[in-house]
Amino acid sequence: MTAVAQRWFESFSAAMARGDIPAAADLFEPDGYWRDLVAFTGTLRTSEGRAAIRSALDRALAAASPTTWTPMGESPARDGYLFRFETRLGRGIGHLRMREGRAWTLLTALRELKGHEEAAGPRRARYVSDNPRTAEPYVVIVGGGQGGIALGARLKRLGVPALIIEKNGRAGDSWRKRYQSLCLHDPVWYDHLPYIPFPDHWPVFSPKDKIADWLEMYVRVMELDYWTATECLNARPVDGGWQLDVLRAGEPVTLHPTHLVLATGMSGFPFLPAVKGSGPKVLHSSQFGDGAAYRGKKALVVGSSTSAHDIAADLHANGADVALLQRSPTIVVRSESLLELAWGRLYSEAALAAGISTDIADLTLASVPFRELPKLQKPLYDEISRRDADLYAGLARAGFLHDMGEDGSGLHSIYLRRGAGYYIDVGASQMIVDGRIKLRHGSVVALDGGRAVLSGGDALPADVVVFATGYGNMSEWAAKLISPEVGERVGPVWGLGSGTKNDPGPWEGELRNMWKPTRQPNLWFHGGNLMQSRHYSLYLALQLKMRQIGGH
Amino acid sequence: MTAVAQRWFESFSAAMARGDIPAAADLFEPDGYWRDLVAFTGTLRTSEGRAAIRSALDRALAAASPTTWTPMGESPARDGYLFRFETRLGRGIGHLRMREGRAWTLLTALRELKGHEEAAGPRRARYVSDNPRTAEPYVVIVGGGQGGIALGARLKRLGVPALIIEKNGRAGDSWRKRYQSLCLHDPVWYDHLPYIPFPDHWPVFSPKDKIADWLEMYVRVMELDYWTATECLNARPVDGGWQLDVLRAGEPVTLHPTHLVLATGMSGFPFLPAVKGSGPKVLHSSQFGDGAAYRGKKALVVGSSTSAHDIAADLHANGADVALLQRSPTIVVRSESLLELAWGRLYSEAALAAGISTDIADLTLASVPFRELPKLQKPLYDEISRRDADLYAGLARAGFLHDMGEDGSGLHSIYLRRGAGYYIDVGASQMIVDGRIKLRHGSVVALDGGRAVLSGGDALPADVVVFATGYGNMSEWAAKLISPEVGERVGPVWGLGSGTKNDPGPWEGELRNMWKPTRQPNLWFHGGNLMQSRHYSLYLALQLKMRQIGGH
Repeated sequence: MTAVAQRWFESFSAAMARGDIPAAADLFEPDGYWRDLVAFTGTLRTSEGRAAIRSALDRALAAASPTTWTPMGESPARDGYLFRFETRLGRGIGHLRMREGRAWTLLTALRELKGHEEAAGPRRARYVSDNPRTAEPYVVIVGGGQGGIALGARLKRLGVPALIIEKNGRAGDSWRKRYQSLCLHDPVWYDHLPYIPFPDHWPVFSPKDKIADWLEMYVRVMELDYWTATECLNARPVDGGWQLDVLRAGEPVTLHPTHLVLATGMSGFPFLPAVKGSGPKVLHSSQFGDGAAYRGKKALVVGSSTSAHDIAADLHANGADVALLQRSPTIVVRSESLLELAWGRLYSEAALAAGISTDIADLTLASVPFRELPKLQKPLYDEISRRDADLYAGLARAGFLHDMGEDGSGLHSIYLRRGAGYYIDVGASQMIVDGRIKLRHGSVVALDGGRAVLSGGDALPADVVVFATGYGNMSEWAAKLISPEVGERVGPVWGLGSGTKNDPGPWEGELRNMWKPTRQPNLWFHGGNLMQSRHYSLYLALQLKMRQIGGH
Repeated sequence: MTAVAQRWFESFSAAMARGDIPAAADLFEPDGYWRDLVAFTGTLRTSEGRAAIRSALDRALAAASPTTWTPMGESPARDGYLFRFETRLGRGIGHLRMREGRAWTLLTALRELKGHEEAAGPRRARYVSDNPRTAEPYVVIVGGGQGGIALGARLKRLGVPALIIEKNGRAGDSWRKRYQSLCLHDPVWYDHLPYIPFPDHWPVFSPKDKIADWLEMYVRVMELDYWTATECLNARPVDGGWQLDVLRAGEPVTLHPTHLVLATGMSGFPFLPAVKGSGPKVLHSSQFGDGAAYRGKKALVVGSSTSAHDIAADLHANGADVALLQRSPTIVVRSESLLELAWGRLYSEAALAAGISTDIADLTLASVPFRELPKLQKPLYDEISRRDADLYAGLARAGFLHDMGEDGSGLHSIYLRRGAGYYIDVGASQMIVDGRIKLRHGSVVALDGGRAVLSGGDALPADVVVFATGYGNMSEWAAKLISPEVGERVGPVWGLGSGTKNDPGPWEGELRNMWKPTRQPNLWFHGGNLMQSRHYSLYLALQLKMRQIGGH
């Protein structure tokens, strides 16, 4: 820890102690950032620039005081300093990046509420009696995938009665039922659930069924209240909470939780474009099982994101004659390159060996303001473009429309903006380069017997057309389960408001409506990949706990 | 690390490098110890005294050389030094205790074989295909409790094809089917399985069903080859291995493994004394389910070890009128006292906070020569006797025969010698003190209608008699499954040969026949509590791996 950083903490600590908000704000760069995860603002909020920081402190400091600040030294990720802090209500951990003596970015993240710490480690129970079941849960989580499960586990440890309802017959089915060849495209170090990490022989890229079985085991050993084969039919806001009609194994049940969390993924319903005519078998990618059923058939896969590539490769491997129909430019990055240049710094064996635990990696990632992310990511994708020039030249020769996003900021940016539009290459790109997977452009406008008619006027022979055309917005779930008005009022879920394609403004500084209060009281959204399910479940759980104990 | 210790390592390292065995042996105290776990001797062997150490080195050093020795500094347990070492074949870790410049105790433990390291951490697979099943396992493990499961997991990670067969319908049933009130009497820090530790909210003393579910999940996520509802009918030594007749879900299957591991616990069959007459319902403790079935009944529990106490307490809690029939003096220690004075130093939150990981704790425990253990343990039980004088006075007033073992060395010693003869008090002792559980002495000689006739001539009214009279020796399994001759040849399994009750000599310096070659080629025994299943499964697995690759 440098003397400059030490002085910064002393000055900041002193300013906060005497409630001197202007002095505290002056310790930031004029364009500095303060991202708070529930510790001061009670929600997820990024304040951009000194004025915003000052006004956020104005609103938060009185309730949070007194505070203490304890530097922990340089982060093992070597990009700033870690520190612990306490507020009146809780304890947290933070991350500070400095430039020329001032804070460029500050992250404050709540970790526990005083008097309501998790009963773990030195606080664990001596004995437990039989697992007590809650008659009426305080929280109902709709959707029992990784998101619902991770949140359920957090709430369990925080003593918040929560019930997860899952439409499938078994926990893990949301993975188990996907196409046979599916593997995670994120590496194992990024994918741990809270509390029980994967053992260290777990493969870097886990097959879907291994994840499915892990989720099922996790629900069991964490003793989550988890109803399988249960569908939420509708949800009505009632005084101080919700009334839910659910169908549990065919039997109607009415639930009255205070909070409703939609953890149905990070997207809405499968999107199938309207296409006239008939002939070929038509499937959405979510319905595709196994390429083996299409041996010797002519297959058209519409789309060029991950599932389009995976399904095309699976069909080809099973002896189908496959064409991919690309609609618009797509980000393609080799998995190898991503492992080495993007994930590796925070999530890898090397990172672990350098002392970067999963938790520190998550904090480091969370400490980068969304506004700065594209600028920080662009050089990395420039490097990948150089390194894998052969691949990109090959794709160009094959006619594949490739870019690194509108602003060249790559995969992580587009994931946050749209949750789609990329392929992490594990082999299908080479199949396109050498023509094993054929490439066409445009969209399907009609089906005509054994042919699919394309927007350009061409027609392709096709026995099966797989629409890997994505999903709607997660707000569709609110519209369907609650009402179209509530869906409308809540607005788009996910995305940053970056003004790029499919991510209209205004800019919000955080992912829209994710893990924080929405315009509909006591309605929450939770989801995303395994990393987000792990990390953000904590902050959502703490917000729910604060409401349960009346501290908010 | 002191200069003296540093010098010791340099001298030892130099002596080993030049093959100077007398000089190496001279670095030990005349009565010093060298315990080797597979690294040099290929087996588990404690050499007691300089002459034995010298002759063990004579036998081992040529094959193991060259060796390197790298001190790691003082153990966080503050009782010696840790070091790493390499031999020609493998890498290991060790523990050194010094007195006056010489080694008092040296532990060398093999950790991995060069070229056959576990595919974990930096060596983990990038992708895995579907779990390949082995047509014919190299090892068959009879018994799928914690012992068989932990060994199966070790072998899986070492790439040794192994099949576990379990007579019950589900993994974990060996716990699930025990009496309802059963909790582990060992604390959680002592109980982890390899590779996947319990999450840190796990209670200190786990209820049996929680352990059962954990074991079932573990088999699944570790993808062990595990046949449930499978009974081993018999095993015949055949050329270079075994022929096993098993019944799998009622269907006969013949297996031909090279190695046979009996992991059927640390004991043999339930021991029921022959008693004339009839009348009361008669059960062995292993058949006892739930005290609720005996409300208002008169119950006699024969025995005074853990299950006798647990069952008596459960019967009392369920409204039965209970008497305990004690046959001989029993060690009783309060769980609280044991946690604080015995387990706590190595297995506790405080130990973890001091840097004593589960692995270092296991090594530290393994580093204490069995010969020295009673001397080291006695002061601890003297302290417990003083601290809990009120309990022992109360037990004496109630007529309970209590001691701390023949030589006062307490619970851990008697566990290693006999695997029985003690109760870790979680409440039943107070019930005996205040008469809620009545106490009688002697044995049951006959049943006579509604009465049990005792050896002293008295008769007790009894609707049910539970014989918590323990189990036979584990060698009974070899006798039953293989042949009485093999059972005889192998001799007693477990115990040290201490010459104390039920542990006849000769002294062996290691647990008899456990985790090491027996007099029957390719027959092994594995078992014990969760700690032993965890720790010693590694050394047994490495011995099997060495044989599989022909390195031994």
